[in-house]
Amino acid sequence: MKDLRNISVIGLGLLGGSISLAARQRLPGAIVVGYSHRSATRKKARDLAIATEIANTVSAAVTDADLIILATPIFTFADYFTQIRSLAQPGCIVTDVGSTKVLPHQWAEQRLGDQVRYVGSHPVAGSEQRGVEFARDDLLAQARCILTTTKQTSRKATRTLRDFWTALGCFVETMAPEEHDRVYADVSHLPHLIAAALVNASDRKDMKFAGKGFLDSTRIASGDATIWTDVLLTNTDNLTNGIDRMLAELAKLRQAVEDQDKDGIETLLTGARRKRAALVKYMLQKKELLS
Amino acid sequence: MKDLRNISVIGLGLLGGSISLAARQRLPGAIVVGYSHRSATRKKARDLAIATEIANTVSAAVTDADLIILATPIFTFADYFTQIRSLAQPGCIVTDVGSTKVLPHQWAEQRLGDQVRYVGSHPVAGSEQRGVEFARDDLLAQARCILTTTKQTSRKATRTLRDFWTALGCFVETMAPEEHDRVYADVSHLPHLIAAALVNASDRKDMKFAGKGFLDSTRIASGDATIWTDVLLTNTDNLTNGIDRMLAELAKLRQAVEDQDKDGIETLLTGARRKRAALVKYMLQKKELLS
Repeated sequence: MKDLRNISVIGLGLLGGSISLAARQRLPGAIVVGYSHRSATRKKARDLAIATEIANTVSAAVTDADLIILATPIFTFADYFTQIRSLAQPGCIVTDVGSTKVLPHQWAEQRLGDQVRYVGSHPVAGSEQRGVEFARDDLLAQARCILTTTKQTSRKATRTLRDFWTALGCFVETMAPEEHDRVYADVSHLPHLIAAALVNASDRKDMKFAGKGFLDSTRIASGDATIWTDVLLTNTDNLTNGIDRMLAELAKLRQAVEDQDKDGIETLLTGARRKRAALVKYMLQKKELLS
Repeated sequence: MKDLRNISVIGLGLLGGSISLAARQRLPGAIVVGYSHRSATRKKARDLAIATEIANTVSAAVTDADLIILATPIFTFADYFTQIRSLAQPGCIVTDVGSTKVLPHQWAEQRLGDQVRYVGSHPVAGSEQRGVEFARDDLLAQARCILTTTKQTSRKATRTLRDFWTALGCFVETMAPEEHDRVYADVSHLPHLIAAALVNASDRKDMKFAGKGFLDSTRIASGDATIWTDVLLTNTDNLTNGIDRMLAELAKLRQAVEDQDKDGIETLLTGARRKRAALVKYMLQKKELLS
């Protein structure tokens, strides 16, 4: 990709590290510069050859960049945007991989200035593991990546970024930031919160008798609490709406159980089963369940 | 196992079929007779060589049995117990693999008579698949199997049944039926109900943007609705208690999100993360996560 010779990845956790590894592998001509504010992480990243080069300062990481990718907790973005405004070269594309997009777009508009071009990114990939030592060059392969754009967004930068994520193996789609945050509150942030609530509602001794079902349904509760706190805090309205829908569904099931209402329970369970079966069928058709 | 020459499996779904296959493989001297009330299932079971022999009637299936295993929906047990009372030979061991145990023990006491010996079983194994065509000889390998016993239960029958499940690859533990139903409401039935509620609370269009987290956390909602309706209906008090604890945890998280209470959210997420990490560590030590 001739437009992207220098790629800078700020934040070398599981996702930043994996993006860096994948970019090295899939874009052989590019120089990938990684940066972490922690020296221990920089050392690990060097030992693991996560990037072409690991910079010791933000300045060294972003000065020559054609593309800067923020892969840090969401509430650090505003400050990075301010730094990038004075450090990045004109025309540089700036993106972030945060799981919410409305506030990053607001911060970008307030802080980045008009010399660089911001587009939001949300690669829907990750795991409950954290840290650069879990970075994998195939984490993004066959993952969905949502780009978020507004009327202000450069179309050319959006095309370039679409090509970048496609090169890394992602299926790219574009949404408005508001739509993105509503959709991902429902399919990601709410399930995360529910998994945490389920673990918190469980007795430690009882949990020892759990089977695979409990483990699978709570896996996401093992996600990085720092990252997820920022996600939940930046999507509060959509989340409280989602929690209210969940409370209503739980109340229906509770009533049916209390009333020993066989038809009512079976209808609710069958509805869920069919709805999920349709989803799995759709995903298999789109080959999204391969990864 | 010399005590168990003739083993009868009533109900040839995923679990019954897998028990039958595993018994054939792991107990080479035994004759395993399978029965399903559906002729189509009996045909499939014959084609797949699920058992040594597939019987066309309950009578033919159980008359010579040393061990009868009911692997049908829970609410069918009472009627089978009545039939077994008049068909089984004296001393025969009768068990079931239902996911709740208090009511099966009551029905067994009311209906089985004193010529046969009842012990409850709950092999904690399964998947979201249903039907004999998904039966696997390794479904029970390294699964936990809970035996439930009361003061009336024959110790000798319990020992024989423990040896049987151990031969099939299970880790066997014993509990009172009341304790079993309380524990499994928390770690299995409540998570199932929550997964169904989450799917029901989700918008069909939004779901198409889901990632692996959503799929994993809702996998159990694809379980057989008929089987699960019976499970929920036979454990109503424990379940409504569990739902109430879940509602309380969701309300805490909702409040913290609405208040933008960063410390509150982080504390709740970190608590869940640590609690689950301790569980995973415990299970890895017990080698229960291998299967």
